[in-house]
Amino acid sequence: MKQHRVIFDTDPGLDDAVAILFLLGASADIELLGLTTVAGNVGVELTTRNARIVCEWAGRGDVPVYAGADRPLVQPYQGAEHVHGASGLDGTPLHEPAMPVRAEHAVDFIIDTLRREPAGSVTLCPVGPLSNIALALRRAPDIAARIGRIVLMGGGYFAGGNMTPAAEFNIHTDPHAADIVLRSGAPIVMLPLDVTHQATTTPARVELLRGLSNRCGPLAAALLTSLERYDVQKLGQDGAPMHDPCVIAYLLRPELFRGREVNVVVELAGHYTTGATVVDWHGESGRAPNALYLSEVDADGLFQLMADALSHLP
Amino acid sequence: MKQHRVIFDTDPGLDDAVAILFLLGASADIELLGLTTVAGNVGVELTTRNARIVCEWAGRGDVPVYAGADRPLVQPYQGAEHVHGASGLDGTPLHEPAMPVRAEHAVDFIIDTLRREPAGSVTLCPVGPLSNIALALRRAPDIAARIGRIVLMGGGYFAGGNMTPAAEFNIHTDPHAADIVLRSGAPIVMLPLDVTHQATTTPARVELLRGLSNRCGPLAAALLTSLERYDVQKLGQDGAPMHDPCVIAYLLRPELFRGREVNVVVELAGHYTTGATVVDWHGESGRAPNALYLSEVDADGLFQLMADALSHLP
Amino acid sequence: MKQHRVIFDTDPGLDDAVAILFLLGASADIELLGLTTVAGNVGVELTTRNARIVCEWAGRGDVPVYAGADRPLVQPYQGAEHVHGASGLDGTPLHEPAMPVRAEHAVDFIIDTLRREPAGSVTLCPVGPLSNIALALRRAPDIAARIGRIVLMGGGYFAGGNMTPAAEFNIHTDPHAADIVLRSGAPIVMLPLDVTHQATTTPARVELLRGLSNRCGPLAAALLTSLERYDVQKLGQDGAPMHDPCVIAYLLRPELFRGREVNVVVELAGHYTTGATVVDWHGESGRAPNALYLSEVDADGLFQLMADALSHLP
Amino acid sequence: MKQHRVIFDTDPGLDDAVAILFLLGASADIELLGLTTVAGNVGVELTTRNARIVCEWAGRGDVPVYAGADRPLVQPYQGAEHVHGASGLDGTPLHEPAMPVRAEHAVDFIIDTLRREPAGSVTLCPVGPLSNIALALRRAPDIAARIGRIVLMGGGYFAGGNMTPAAEFNIHTDPHAADIVLRSGAPIVMLPLDVTHQATTTPARVELLRGLSNRCGPLAAALLTSLERYDVQKLGQDGAPMHDPCVIAYLLRPELFRGREVNVVVELAGHYTTGATVVDWHGESGRAPNALYLSEVDADGLFQLMADALSHLP
Repeated sequence: MKQHRVIFDTDPGLDDAVAILFLLGASADIELLGLTTVAGNVGVELTTRNARIVCEWAGRGDVPVYAGADRPLVQPYQGAEHVHGASGLDGTPLHEPAMPVRAEHAVDFIIDTLRREPAGSVTLCPVGPLSNIALALRRAPDIAARIGRIVLMGGGYFAGGNMTPAAEFNIHTDPHAADIVLRSGAPIVMLPLDVTHQATTTPARVELLRGLSNRCGPLAAALLTSLERYDVQKLGQDGAPMHDPCVIAYLLRPELFRGREVNVVVELAGHYTTGATVVDWHGESGRAPNALYLSEVDADGLFQLMADALSHLP
Repeated sequence: MKQHRVIFDTDPGLDDAVAILFLLGASADIELLGLTTVAGNVGVELTTRNARIVCEWAGRGDVPVYAGADRPLVQPYQGAEHVHGASGLDGTPLHEPAMPVRAEHAVDFIIDTLRREPAGSVTLCPVGPLSNIALALRRAPDIAARIGRIVLMGGGYFAGGNMTPAAEFNIHTDPHAADIVLRSGAPIVMLPLDVTHQATTTPARVELLRGLSNRCGPLAAALLTSLERYDVQKLGQDGAPMHDPCVIAYLLRPELFRGREVNVVVELAGHYTTGATVVDWHGESGRAPNALYLSEVDADGLFQLMADALSHLP
Repeated sequence: MKQHRVIFDTDPGLDDAVAILFLLGASADIELLGLTTVAGNVGVELTTRNARIVCEWAGRGDVPVYAGADRPLVQPYQGAEHVHGASGLDGTPLHEPAMPVRAEHAVDFIIDTLRREPAGSVTLCPVGPLSNIALALRRAPDIAARIGRIVLMGGGYFAGGNMTPAAEFNIHTDPHAADIVLRSGAPIVMLPLDVTHQATTTPARVELLRGLSNRCGPLAAALLTSLERYDVQKLGQDGAPMHDPCVIAYLLRPELFRGREVNVVVELAGHYTTGATVVDWHGESGRAPNALYLSEVDADGLFQLMADALSHLP
Repeated sequence: MKQHRVIFDTDPGLDDAVAILFLLGASADIELLGLTTVAGNVGVELTTRNARIVCEWAGRGDVPVYAGADRPLVQPYQGAEHVHGASGLDGTPLHEPAMPVRAEHAVDFIIDTLRREPAGSVTLCPVGPLSNIALALRRAPDIAARIGRIVLMGGGYFAGGNMTPAAEFNIHTDPHAADIVLRSGAPIVMLPLDVTHQATTTPARVELLRGLSNRCGPLAAALLTSLERYDVQKLGQDGAPMHDPCVIAYLLRPELFRGREVNVVVELAGHYTTGATVVDWHGESGRAPNALYLSEVDADGLFQLMADALSHLP
C-alpha cells in the first residue's frame, strides 16, 4: 500500500492544475482515490472540465473524477476569474476532455470512501473552498472520526489575505464550510498564505519545470507564468505566490515546512473580516489547538521536489 | 391523486406529535410520502423514535420514516427539553416503536423524491429546524425548481421570538439553514409565531379534542396540555400557542389564514438578534417578496378542523 | 416648583414641532430648562432653526436653545427628509427666527444643568437620536446618577421598525448612543412605535386641534397633516402614527399608558437588524430590566390632553 | 517655536511612562502643550496619578495634566493589569505626586487648544485607547480640520494582535473611538505592533538606558524590564516589544521608519475580530488611503535616539 491514500478536492484554477500534475507525478508515494471538484476559482462545470483536462495531460484518463458543490453553503458564489481567466486555465492550450465524470456526487463519494476504507487511512486534500468536505461532514457526521488527516490550502495570518485585506480566497469564498471543517475534530494541517507567499515563482524556480524534457514540465511552467500575471502586478515582486502545490509537497516531505499546533477559527460575522482565519499563534484565546498551522517553507526544496515529481509524467 | 402530496419534516416534540396526528387524520386530502426527522426539540435519535410512536398511535406503522440531520449546519446544537421534556413527548404514555426507520438518509430521500415525482407536485412541510431541507438544496441544487411549495412553521415578527426576545426556536436553532431555504427561490408559506400565538390552547378548544371518542383525540389533548405547562407560566394567559399543527390546517383550509407576500430574511450576524426573521411588512427594504407570511388565523376554525381530522383516527 | 423640570432634546421635524407646542402649552406643569437640538430628521443647523421657529410660534422667544451634535457617534449621518421635507417642517409657513441660539454647546448645557440642579430633579426628554445624551454621559459619567428620568421616544418591538423592517428611526440613526443611554443606569421610560402606531392622526383627532381658536392649534394640525403624507401611503390606514408628542403626554398623564418593566438592548452588529431594540417582554434573556417599555395608549385621551394644552398658547 | 507642538494622550502604563520620559528628554524639539490621560492599561485615576509621577521623576512638575475619559465610548472597560501591574507602574518606586491635575477635562482641553492654536500646528500623540480624541471630534467636529497630525500607537496587521489573536490592546479597548479617529479626515500616522514588535528590549538596548548616569535612564530601564515579564514569557524571545516610545521616535526621526499610505478600518462587528485593524496593504479594497501605516523600524537607531534624549533629564 502506498504511503498516502488521498481524495483531492479542487477547483482548477491554474495552481490547482499544477498541484494535480504534481500529485500524479508523485504516484509512487500517493494513491489518488478520486478527484472531487467544487465551485471556486471558476464554476463547478468548468472546474470539473479542467480537472479532466489536466488528468489527460498526464495520461491519466483513468482517474475517477466526481463533480461536487456548485456554490458555497450560505454565501452567494463569487469566482476568481480575474486571476485564473474565464476558462480557469487561461494561458494554456485546452482541449475537450474525453474521460468521463463519474455519476456519483462528490459529497457521496467522500462519504462512501471514508466509510468503506479503514478508519484513519484516507487523507483529504482540499485546495479550494471547503463546501464538499463540510456538506459530507453534516450529511454523515460519523465520517469525522474516520478521516486520517485533512491537509488543506487556505487561510492566512501574518500574510493577511488575498481576497480582502483580511481573508484568503478559499476560506472567504465559503467561510461557513471552513468553520465546519475546523470544528470537526479531524486532524488538520493548514498551508496558508503565510507559507505560499514564500513559495514564489521566481524565474529560476519556474525554469526548473520548463526545462524538463517532457510535456507536463513546460505545461506546469506555463500555468505558473499565467498565474503570475495577476499577483506580480499586485505584489510588485519577482514571482507570484504558488498556493495549492504546497499541499502535495507537505505530504511528500513535511520536513520542508515549519509551523505550530494552534487554535484557528473563522470569522463569520465581521463587517470587514468575514472569512479571516484567526490564528492564536501566542495562545491568547484559551481555545484548544485544532490545526497544525504551517508558517515557513523551504521554497527551493519545494520546487526541486515538484520538478522531480513532474519528471515522472509524460 | 390526493390534493396534497407531502414530505413532513419534523422534530417531535409535543406539538409536532399533534401535527402528525392531524396530518394522518387528514389522509383523505393529504398523501404522506414520508416523514423525515431532524434534531430540534430533542436529539435526532429521539425525534426519530417519537415520530414512529405517534404513527403507531394512529395505526400507521406503514409510514416511511427517514432519520436526518443530527445537528444544525453551522451552529452548535441546543435542544428544547425545557419545553418538551427529556423524551420530547413528556406527559404521554410512550412505548418502544415496532415500525422501522428506513435505511435511506432523510436528505437523500428528499432529493430522490423530488427528482422522481413530477416537478411541482410535492409539498415540503418542515416544522422543525430547516437543516434537512437546506442540506438537500445544497447537495442537489436542481431540486429547488422541483419543489411545489414549502409550507413551514417558523419565525416571528409582530410577536417577537420565543427562544430569545428576537428569535423563534426553529429558525434560531439553524439560522443558516433558514437563510438557505428563504433564498432558494422555491415558493414558501410561513406560519410564524404571529399566527401560532393566536392559535392558543384554550380549555374549550382542547376539550374538542379530548371529547373525541377515539384514542387519538384524548392523546392530542394530553400533548397540548403538556405543552401548556411551559408557555402558560411564561406568557401568563389562558392556553399556550399551538405551533406545528397550523401547517396542516393551512394545507387543508388556507382561507382560515390571512397574510402578505413579503420579503423575509434571517439575521445571521447579530449579537442579540441571530435567528430573527426580518419581515419587510411595509416594503421598506426594496428586497423582492420571497414568502407568503401569514399573520392571522381563525383559531376556532382551526381547532374545529383539527378535531374533525382527528376523529378519523383510531 | 413645577411638577416636571425638563430638558427637551429634539430634531424638529414635524412631530417634534407638535411636541414642542404641546410642551409649551403645558407650562403650568412643566418647566422647560432648555431645548437642545441634534442632527436627526434633518441636519442640526435646520433642527436648531426649526426649534426656534416653533418657540416663536408659541410666543416663547425666551426659551434657551442650545445646538448639539451634528452627527451620530459612530455611524454616518442620514436624515429623514423623505418624511419631513427638505426644511424639516415642510407644509407650514416658515420665518427666519429672531431668538438667539445660546453659545454653550448642548452637551455642555446638559452636563452643567444636571450638576447644578438637585440630583434627581431634572427629566431628560429626548425625541431624536440620542447623540447628545450619550456624549454627555461619556464626557461626564457622574451625571448618570443625577438624572431624574429619561423619557424618550424611540424603538419598537411588536410594531417592528419604521426606518428598516427591524429598526425605528431615532435608534437606527445612532444605535451606539442608544446603547450608551440604555446601559447608563438612569431610570428610563420608552415610548416606542408600539405606542405611537396607536396614536394615529385620524381626521376627528386632528380636527380637535384645527378647531382651536388660536394660532397654534391649526398650526399643529397642519404639521400633523403634513406628516401623514408619507406614512398614510406606506401604512395604508386612516391617519399616521404620531410619535414625539407622546413623551409630553406621558409626563402629564402617565395613566393614559400601559407597559412593562423589561430589559431593552440595542443590536449593534446585525446585518439586517442594526438599531433594533430587542425587548425582553417575556423575560427570556435573564437580563435585568432597565426600562419601562410602554406598549399601549389611550389615543383619544392623548389627543384631548394635547388639545387642552395647545389651547393655552397664542 | 519648536519643531513639534504636542498633546500627549496616555494611559501609563510602563511603556507609556518611558514614552513620557523620552518626550520630556526631547524638549529641545518638542513642546508639550499638555498631557491628557485616559482609562486604558489601568483606570483613569491611576493613569492620571502615574502621568504626574513620571513628570516629577523628570523634574517637570510644571507640565499641565488633564484627566479624561474613564471608559471606552461603547464597550465596557477592561484594563491590562496583567501586563502593567495593579498600579500601572509595577516594578518601580512610586510616590504620591505633588503636582496638580488641572480642573479642565481632557476632552475640553483638546478642543480648546486646537481652536486656540493656529490650524495645523498641533500634533496629537495618543498612545492609549482613543476615547478622548474621539469624544473631542464628536463634541467639536470643527477641530478635525485643525489637527496637524495624529501620530498614534495602535493596531497591527502582519504581527496580528496582542489582546486577542486579531486585535491590539489600544484599538481593542475602544474600537469605536478608533473608528471615529480613522474616519476623521485628519492626517494620521500609525505605529502598530508590526513596528513595535521589531523594537524589542534586548539586553544590549536596555543597557544603553540603564548605563546613563542620571536618575531617569535607569528608571526607564527598570520600566522596560518590568514590561518584559509578561511578553517575554508569551513570545518566548529575547526582549519584549516596546510600544509607545515609538511615537516620540517617529516625531524626532521619521527616517528610522518605513511604511505605506494605505486604508485602515477597524472591525466593529466581528465575533473573533472586534478591534482588528484591517490594513489594505495591497490595495484590494478600493477604499482610499487614510493613514501612513508604518511597518519597519531601525530598532537600534530608535534605542540610541531614546538614550540620547533621556540623557538630558535629571
